[in-house]
Amino acid sequence: MGSPVHRVSMGDTWSRQVHPDIESERYKQTFDVERLTNILDGGAQDTALRRKVESIIHSDPEFSLKDNYFLTQSECYEAAVEKKFHLQMLAQRQGWAEDSREAYYAYRCSPPGQLHQRGIHLGSPGSPLSHELLPPTKAVLAGNQDARTLSGSLGFSLQHIFLKALRSLGSEEQIAKWVPVCNKFQIIGTYAQTELGHGTYLQGLETEATYDAATQEFVVHSPTMTAIKWWPGDLGRSATHALVQAQLICSGARQGMHAFIVPIRSLQDHTPLPGITVGDIGPKMGLDHVDNGFLQLDHVRVPRENMLSRFAQVLPDGTYIKLGTAQSNYLSMVVTRVELLPGITAELQKACVIAIRYSIIRHQSRLRPSEPEAKILDYQTQQQKLLPQLATAYAFHFLARSLLEFLHDSHDAILDRDFSLLPELHALSAGLKAMVSDFCTYGAELCRRACGGHGYSKLSGLPSLVTKVTASCTFEGENTVLYLQMARFLVKSYQRTQVSLGPTLQRSLPQSVAYLTAPDLARCPAQRAADFFHPELYTTAWAHVAARLTKDSVHHIQTLMRSGADEHEAWNRTTVIHLQAAKAHCYYVTVKSFTEALEKLESEPAVRQVLRRLCDLYALHGILTNTGDFLHDGFLSGAQVDMARTAYLDLLLLVRKDAILLTDAFDFTDQCLNSALGCYDGNVYERLFDWAQKSPSNTQENPAYEKYIRPLLQSCRSKL
Amino acid sequence: MGSPVHRVSMGDTWSRQVHPDIESERYKQTFDVERLTNILDGGAQDTALRRKVESIIHSDPEFSLKDNYFLTQSECYEAAVEKKFHLQMLAQRQGWAEDSREAYYAYRCSPPGQLHQRGIHLGSPGSPLSHELLPPTKAVLAGNQDARTLSGSLGFSLQHIFLKALRSLGSEEQIAKWVPVCNKFQIIGTYAQTELGHGTYLQGLETEATYDAATQEFVVHSPTMTAIKWWPGDLGRSATHALVQAQLICSGARQGMHAFIVPIRSLQDHTPLPGITVGDIGPKMGLDHVDNGFLQLDHVRVPRENMLSRFAQVLPDGTYIKLGTAQSNYLSMVVTRVELLPGITAELQKACVIAIRYSIIRHQSRLRPSEPEAKILDYQTQQQKLLPQLATAYAFHFLARSLLEFLHDSHDAILDRDFSLLPELHALSAGLKAMVSDFCTYGAELCRRACGGHGYSKLSGLPSLVTKVTASCTFEGENTVLYLQMARFLVKSYQRTQVSLGPTLQRSLPQSVAYLTAPDLARCPAQRAADFFHPELYTTAWAHVAARLTKDSVHHIQTLMRSGADEHEAWNRTTVIHLQAAKAHCYYVTVKSFTEALEKLESEPAVRQVLRRLCDLYALHGILTNTGDFLHDGFLSGAQVDMARTAYLDLLLLVRKDAILLTDAFDFTDQCLNSALGCYDGNVYERLFDWAQKSPSNTQENPAYEKYIRPLLQSCRSKL
Repeated sequence: MGSPVHRVSMGDTWSRQVHPDIESERYKQTFDVERLTNILDGGAQDTALRRKVESIIHSDPEFSLKDNYFLTQSECYEAAVEKKFHLQMLAQRQGWAEDSREAYYAYRCSPPGQLHQRGIHLGSPGSPLSHELLPPTKAVLAGNQDARTLSGSLGFSLQHIFLKALRSLGSEEQIAKWVPVCNKFQIIGTYAQTELGHGTYLQGLETEATYDAATQEFVVHSPTMTAIKWWPGDLGRSATHALVQAQLICSGARQGMHAFIVPIRSLQDHTPLPGITVGDIGPKMGLDHVDNGFLQLDHVRVPRENMLSRFAQVLPDGTYIKLGTAQSNYLSMVVTRVELLPGITAELQKACVIAIRYSIIRHQSRLRPSEPEAKILDYQTQQQKLLPQLATAYAFHFLARSLLEFLHDSHDAILDRDFSLLPELHALSAGLKAMVSDFCTYGAELCRRACGGHGYSKLSGLPSLVTKVTASCTFEGENTVLYLQMARFLVKSYQRTQVSLGPTLQRSLPQSVAYLTAPDLARCPAQRAADFFHPELYTTAWAHVAARLTKDSVHHIQTLMRSGADEHEAWNRTTVIHLQAAKAHCYYVTVKSFTEALEKLESEPAVRQVLRRLCDLYALHGILTNTGDFLHDGFLSGAQVDMARTAYLDLLLLVRKDAILLTDAFDFTDQCLNSALGCYDGNVYERLFDWAQKSPSNTQENPAYEKYIRPLLQSCRSKL
Repeated sequence: MGSPVHRVSMGDTWSRQVHPDIESERYKQTFDVERLTNILDGGAQDTALRRKVESIIHSDPEFSLKDNYFLTQSECYEAAVEKKFHLQMLAQRQGWAEDSREAYYAYRCSPPGQLHQRGIHLGSPGSPLSHELLPPTKAVLAGNQDARTLSGSLGFSLQHIFLKALRSLGSEEQIAKWVPVCNKFQIIGTYAQTELGHGTYLQGLETEATYDAATQEFVVHSPTMTAIKWWPGDLGRSATHALVQAQLICSGARQGMHAFIVPIRSLQDHTPLPGITVGDIGPKMGLDHVDNGFLQLDHVRVPRENMLSRFAQVLPDGTYIKLGTAQSNYLSMVVTRVELLPGITAELQKACVIAIRYSIIRHQSRLRPSEPEAKILDYQTQQQKLLPQLATAYAFHFLARSLLEFLHDSHDAILDRDFSLLPELHALSAGLKAMVSDFCTYGAELCRRACGGHGYSKLSGLPSLVTKVTASCTFEGENTVLYLQMARFLVKSYQRTQVSLGPTLQRSLPQSVAYLTAPDLARCPAQRAADFFHPELYTTAWAHVAARLTKDSVHHIQTLMRSGADEHEAWNRTTVIHLQAAKAHCYYVTVKSFTEALEKLESEPAVRQVLRRLCDLYALHGILTNTGDFLHDGFLSGAQVDMARTAYLDLLLLVRKDAILLTDAFDFTDQCLNSALGCYDGNVYERLFDWAQKSPSNTQENPAYEKYIRPLLQSCRSKL
């Protein structure tokens, strides 16, 4: 079955012909792939512009990621810093304005919504950014296929977070003073919130900033070992200034968390300043190019002007003045999490592209004894692994877009201090960040394993993708904590309907949870497999389950309280059920947003049909992996579950036919995938062989030979 | 909540006192932890001997793994080779005979059953070893807490596989010639089976060995690119000889796979021999210390004596003589997979120890507003993550032991060529290898994420553990393929009962699937939560589900065939259901083996009680994560599922109390865990801080500073 050996080349010059196994998959297009790409990009013009920028980046050898898999951690860091500076120069040369779409496409590695940037911020539940974050949302909206170009390979992305925080928390004077020097990289900033002993629970942070009226300075200090700042990106080896979140103490009173600009390294020779202990936290599972660091502060003095003072001030005499509301912090977390979604989703999309293309080239075993070895994508079990992931990758695209639109549409109201939509937005952003990062991590690892042994090779591109996306389950809020925030919103919403069942209150339930009071079907009406191909049927089914689980949560709390538990204990002892409810709600929201996106595609019947299959597949796969939730109260019968399974298995065969076209539609370049298994032309084995030759193990001396191997072997002088 | 800063030390000399948070967990022992350790070890004497050997290893600085997390891939390789040679010398000095228990404890890194060794063999479904494998099974049985000491840090473990294959497939003359030079490391052997384009499906291997009667040589050749050997451990940079699996062609006929000893590197200067292209396959997700390699053979000639000829010979004139049976290969795969189980299980045990200890030290948020921050293990969601994993880690210990015993007990019959037990053994070894590796990988990653941000640091020990154990899902048979082998056995067994329902045939069903014909309860009799604390109840429940799903598989195949599909198509289009059936059967077998192990502990009521809770927890967690399977035909009602949930949530609180003692009982040394989060004394933050200081990022110059950072910052001469 193999390709002839003569196609092998030590260079990069094997036949570039598309492998016939994959070519045949593209031969008959049941829909216009380019049109689908345009829809994903937000329009044909956006596709064109994105491609233009990508081609500039990819044609520049400075941005090549080719040998990335062979670098040591330190080399990764150096390469990332180098690329960052090179990109700055390129943008200048090209005349890409800072807020242009070109810059957006080129700098995908720096704006919010970018995965690797958030990766820097492990364990932290969101930075205290504010309204200023909203405009980039538009850019993310415009082209929310993220994490595409240089993602995960650029340095100094914390500069961006530093600037955002400065702009949202700083006074006009502070912004005028610090933003220009940041923009020119005359200083390198980082954002220092998470501590060695404190992450998601902000109130627990220990770093202190005590105001000294005598000198008009703040004394910033790490009072304990657990107070040492830990994880901030760019802090380990690069940053000169840190925006430090610390407990403000003035006139003897604790005023909660505030942000302080603290110089940490000399601008002359980069050595740590007095009172500063700073360094790298050591190797991680992934994100080698980021120098996540620690920062211990020993009574470091900074001037009074270094406390960001848009929302709170300390007067020279130590009087504390509060100017803002808690809502600003609240909103900023929402924005940060929503903008993460496209970048996380892109990682699953890439994993699907790689694994599905490989599954067309890889042949293994026979479906029938008389036949040649089959493409592994023709096995039902391989379809069952990969195709629901492909459906998920599409579902999350439309989910992220819908949430970004919701955020964008509420923008003006929120700026006008109408916070009525904020609780719903907050719940959605928390729960969906948790769901998207959970599912994308699970799916990317599934794709990796579906490539068998070769998925374990870094050259497949999958290991680094998996170790990157798994970080998103922890950063910007640990997922379990986030699901529980959504659950709290569900429980509260339901409890509101219980206080009074009057029509006014019911109508006031936020849209995404309106089903909690809607008339509910007690039984699913499906009578045959084909009935499950109806969005209304499965959306209703998910709403039913989410509502039942929410009621179950409330009931469980009530039962515990009746038997003597207080509300806090009852809450904690119900959290396992809360998680179930929140997850079902997330599923419902995703199915609903996918369905609504399809409704807007009336003028594109062919594309709509293929997307509709993915929507069906996503929903049915969800039902079939959670059948217990649907069977529990008899909403589905066992016979109906079997019908859903029949529908699902039929769908797998249909989606299989379009699988390659659906992965092509994401339009990831080979350079971006950086995978020997996932290239467009399907020349998997040639590339694996070729890339392996460049491993330092093959180009450098064997360090163990002279020292250990040779002395042993030398004793053998026989005729072996 | 933090510890005072003065406990920090740049050396390794912080207070070694046990952290009070973890000390208090050990204060009140409800059972004798040492007794449980003895039970796990197989007896008090075994515990003592294991500890003695471990203390010798750990007191030797050459075996220190301390700085392992800071090494480059090449340094990892060099360190592994160095440790291997050092261990050889130590064993000599200590007088540990090759088959002694001391050697077993010390060399856990080389005998079968060892995880890292198998890691070398990605994508390959088992080496063609034979009866000679059985004795080590006894050693594994004697102390099946594996992968403990130097696991994953030694070089040249393929020498062992090479030797095993030689001993089982070679003639007496071949063994006499090659074994001594191997044992003295005068040659370094590897085992080359998997190819670039061929893994689990052995018949698809393409490498050819064509007999040339004129010279009495075999011409070993890679006819295509996909025929290049790919993945063998120690091949990339070390091995001098490869045992190559190739299609034998003699007198113009293809005779199937046979093994050939092929010299690949010069014993004088280690350069590749003529016709050999050999090298490293490049970086991987883990297992950095292993030089997995590739081997391309261009008409390489080896003498006729180099074909291993215990079971088949080629006479000088090219006549082919078959001496053995297919069963020998069959058995060897069984043995290999069974012996893997303890090593894989040990990885989950270690992950549990690390995550549970850390969850006692980590405080986050408050359970009640009036209280200080709580130990995170006191949150129900953290218990829900970790405690079922702890239960699984114990369940798999007893499962592995029971399967090893079964294998051991059938030893004599099999040697006497009574193969009647082999199909059952084969199915069990395939399915349980898949289940154990799947669950341990899932569980280890869950433990890693349950440590929040710090679980992403390599210093936690968890990333390398996860990337190691995940390889076990692919090597020695890809898990989906293995589950389907078990499913085929289930389907065949059930079909046998359908042919005739006479009592003779029924009684002849193998023991592990006897439930397929046993009288079945249509409804679970549980009436309250406490009823679920009965092994008989949940074992029966699992048997019911496994039987139902097996029947469902058979029925689905029959339905498809009635509508025109042939048997092969029907099989493939039912594989999604086959997987479900196989998984349910695995669950049943695990619950049953755990229950049976408990029955033998009558004289140890306290230990038995705590293990019984783990058994209950394992079974109920399984039911609650698969409720659909139990609700589908009404075996459980929704109300009964709620009872099971109540029982499960109550159990979490009970197991929580003993959690630290249950992790202590595994008796992993700090050196073995090599985790800043998981040490016995609980000084998590001190260790993280201390270890991070040693990162090369902190001890070496910043390579990017002079080149990129300094020039930029220089332009800034303001008074910032």
